[in-house]
Amino acid sequence: MQALATPSKEQITNYFQDLQNRICHAIEQADRKGKFLTDTWQRLEGGGGISRIIQQGQVLEKAGVNFSAVFGEIPEALRTHFQFQGEKFYATGVSIVMHPHNPFVPIIHMNVRYFQLDEHTAWFGGGIDLTPHYIDEEEARFFHQSLKNICDKYHTNYYATFKKWADDYFFIKHRQETRGIGGIFFDRLKADSEFSLYDRFLFVQEVAEAFVPIYTHLIAKNKNRPFTEQHKRWQLLRRGRYVEFNLVYDAGTKFGLETNGRIESILMSLPPYVSWEYNYVPQSGSAEEKTLKLLKKGIEWV
Amino acid sequence: MQALATPSKEQITNYFQDLQNRICHAIEQADRKGKFLTDTWQRLEGGGGISRIIQQGQVLEKAGVNFSAVFGEIPEALRTHFQFQGEKFYATGVSIVMHPHNPFVPIIHMNVRYFQLDEHTAWFGGGIDLTPHYIDEEEARFFHQSLKNICDKYHTNYYATFKKWADDYFFIKHRQETRGIGGIFFDRLKADSEFSLYDRFLFVQEVAEAFVPIYTHLIAKNKNRPFTEQHKRWQLLRRGRYVEFNLVYDAGTKFGLETNGRIESILMSLPPYVSWEYNYVPQSGSAEEKTLKLLKKGIEWV
Repeated sequence: MQALATPSKEQITNYFQDLQNRICHAIEQADRKGKFLTDTWQRLEGGGGISRIIQQGQVLEKAGVNFSAVFGEIPEALRTHFQFQGEKFYATGVSIVMHPHNPFVPIIHMNVRYFQLDEHTAWFGGGIDLTPHYIDEEEARFFHQSLKNICDKYHTNYYATFKKWADDYFFIKHRQETRGIGGIFFDRLKADSEFSLYDRFLFVQEVAEAFVPIYTHLIAKNKNRPFTEQHKRWQLLRRGRYVEFNLVYDAGTKFGLETNGRIESILMSLPPYVSWEYNYVPQSGSAEEKTLKLLKKGIEWV
Repeated sequence: MQALATPSKEQITNYFQDLQNRICHAIEQADRKGKFLTDTWQRLEGGGGISRIIQQGQVLEKAGVNFSAVFGEIPEALRTHFQFQGEKFYATGVSIVMHPHNPFVPIIHMNVRYFQLDEHTAWFGGGIDLTPHYIDEEEARFFHQSLKNICDKYHTNYYATFKKWADDYFFIKHRQETRGIGGIFFDRLKADSEFSLYDRFLFVQEVAEAFVPIYTHLIAKNKNRPFTEQHKRWQLLRRGRYVEFNLVYDAGTKFGLETNGRIESILMSLPPYVSWEYNYVPQSGSAEEKTLKLLKKGIEWV
């Protein structure tokens, strides 16, 4: 088994790149109109990436699937932030954000990543979280149960730990609202006495492979639901909150902006149309008010 | 003259509150349809403010004019940030952001403020800056000349210094673009050997009083200009940059979010409708491309 204990960075990189292709293919099938454009970019200091984008698809108003594999000297900001000792790094991953047209189809985000400093210091991170414009409790249960099923195969504590991590991470402090219904979020999954790095890789793969069945289910279920101008108005306001989170709090975005990352790939996550209204308060008893009440940490969906 | 050398905080506060009323009145006249709503709010720790907002006016899609006067114990974040020694503070000011419907009417921002730690430590700050969706060089000259005329009455270096300060401050680092054509920005204008605090107050008043004639001129000149879907599309993209600046860099916004300020008043500056498109590149030779080329630091408009 030792041969499997430490996946090579090439193996991990190939998996992520293949994952990007397979996800784009499946999403094109689900959208039935949108085709992913491909932008390949190089990083001056080493490596690069492939950004794939649908704009104005049939189901998806904007969808981005980023793959990147970057390496070289550790940027100073990274060294300081993580208090790294080493000189070189290797990082690869896939990041996804999808904004649908229909307000009843949720926004989804997934990220899976691998970071390596040297042979002995490497870890996986990632997660999936869902941001419904209107929270449907049955769908929220379906989503969390899907993630819990994966987590439970690896560790009885994983779901509870990673679910709380997502609640804490995807939190818009100045609004005292969660971004959506959370999901799972994890980082620094290294090899330890319980799990080899290969075990970590298997877990991350299972999470990544869950993306398509989960999201295509949510698309199929909701894409044809009729909606009104009021639903659309609320969707644009919720997208505003999404922007607030990503620009004010998201660690990946902040880090990318501070370290001269490729801006268009970093900000691909921002929604196509957004609005801010002054002090919008949902009507008492409305579906909008119900959603707001559910944008709280610590809700046990399953 | 000594009686005039140090304006009282009541005098300054009254001026700012009156300024808010007069500006709102003049802008309602210019809009001809929108009426400012009034939200009065209290700050638990001392003081409060009045937020006044037009949404969906005739000329202005969203316009906010904030007045506040807050005081009490210095918040810890403020103490650390400014390395203050004192215990108490008093801060008052007016903040304005206006987003017009017509893409040929620029976005405008003004802030004038007074900050006092004790009898001997007090200063004024503020500025006006303009964010045209389409830069018209003649208008840019008019705008900068208006501000320079005021600055020149007080000090031959003021315009150059405060113009550079605005260029440096209203800069979207990750885009390497200025937010707009700048204007003037100044802070920490204390009493010194050359100017009494009353002189500083007079300067700030002249800047504040320039807001209405400048902006009503720009409104009258452009509000009826015909525009196409392409102009509107570009306006929404430029508004996206405005959001990026305000959420990622603006010191007032960041400070407000970190110190539990009144969120709706702080984020009143965010535009009504905004969009982000992936990697939008203006056509060669277009008005959009011309504008982008002029969003640079260090352009001498006058």
